[in-house]
Amino acid sequence: MARWEPNARERLVRAAIELFAEQGYEATTVNEIAERAGGLTKTTFFRHFTDKREVLFAGQEIHGRIAAEAIAGAPESATPLEMAGLALDGLASSFTKDRRDIGRRLRAVIANSAELQERSASKRAALSDAMAQALRTRGVSDLIADLAAELGARAFYGAFDRWTSSADPRTLVEYAREVFGELKTAVSALE
Amino acid sequence: MARWEPNARERLVRAAIELFAEQGYEATTVNEIAERAGGLTKTTFFRHFTDKREVLFAGQEIHGRIAAEAIAGAPESATPLEMAGLALDGLASSFTKDRRDIGRRLRAVIANSAELQERSASKRAALSDAMAQALRTRGVSDLIADLAAELGARAFYGAFDRWTSSADPRTLVEYAREVFGELKTAVSALE
Repeated sequence: MARWEPNARERLVRAAIELFAEQGYEATTVNEIAERAGGLTKTTFFRHFTDKREVLFAGQEIHGRIAAEAIAGAPESATPLEMAGLALDGLASSFTKDRRDIGRRLRAVIANSAELQERSASKRAALSDAMAQALRTRGVSDLIADLAAELGARAFYGAFDRWTSSADPRTLVEYAREVFGELKTAVSALE
Repeated sequence: MARWEPNARERLVRAAIELFAEQGYEATTVNEIAERAGGLTKTTFFRHFTDKREVLFAGQEIHGRIAAEAIAGAPESATPLEMAGLALDGLASSFTKDRRDIGRRLRAVIANSAELQERSASKRAALSDAMAQALRTRGVSDLIADLAAELGARAFYGAFDRWTSSADPRTLVEYAREVFGELKTAVSALE
């Protein structure tokens, strides 16, 4: 029964994004996604994802872990912002080139659905929380950890927006460093 | 038909919070809220609120306006953080003492419902957006406006949490200044 479907997960993600872009998120069923993914079944879909929304966000759980590991491994002497910068580098470098096109389509799909925007906001909050928690573990006080994590998350999502809305060949890591630099400058200009 | 019901809006808010606290948000109907509010009707309820969720958040639209007006009226020489501080003072001083008890019960109700947490997060984002927009109108650049507004919103919600979870006689304005001061110190400790 549960036979091996090569790359089923990746095929399902691509099929879902194609269908959401073509006919809208609401109008697309799990059956259609499985079918478009090269004749997979609903059962296969639910082996990989808990629901239709999750197909767009499931990969993101790993982001919190990547960011937290980068913070855990930062040098003893690193400031909170330097640790957030390392988390950002780790996160951004986990995005291969082919994620750019998927990300571009994903953004368009999310922009058209209030439900997906809510889920997206909650995934963003989860990333920020994971970073803040990792910073606290490094001995950073609550408020400072929250702020550094907020800046890291802002830089990541800001960079992802620029990366997926431009044709410039720069990598996501380069965009992330650029946006993070701008945010740091803005912080110093607050008062 | 549409006869005048004295203080209907305030009575409906109090009745809703009582019922949500007693029997849960999901289990409470609009009919029950109207009835508990001293024999009002469903029709009266819907003259004041669009839905059951809105009864808890409807007052908050005014918060963005209060904050924006404080920023618009800030002295020419004010820095972005000083403008955010004035917005915070204006907002916090609009909360009379009796909002403290309502706020305390509201927090408990929201803590028990994922649906209300999502709505609450979106109202928080609306307040932050209103402040950022007002700062931009004052000539503050996008990133700096976003950060100052984020700090203002964090200070407001942080202060509201402390105010409604303590019996200390200090006003919300005093709490807001305290939390905002801590946030400013945290910002300088980031790097």
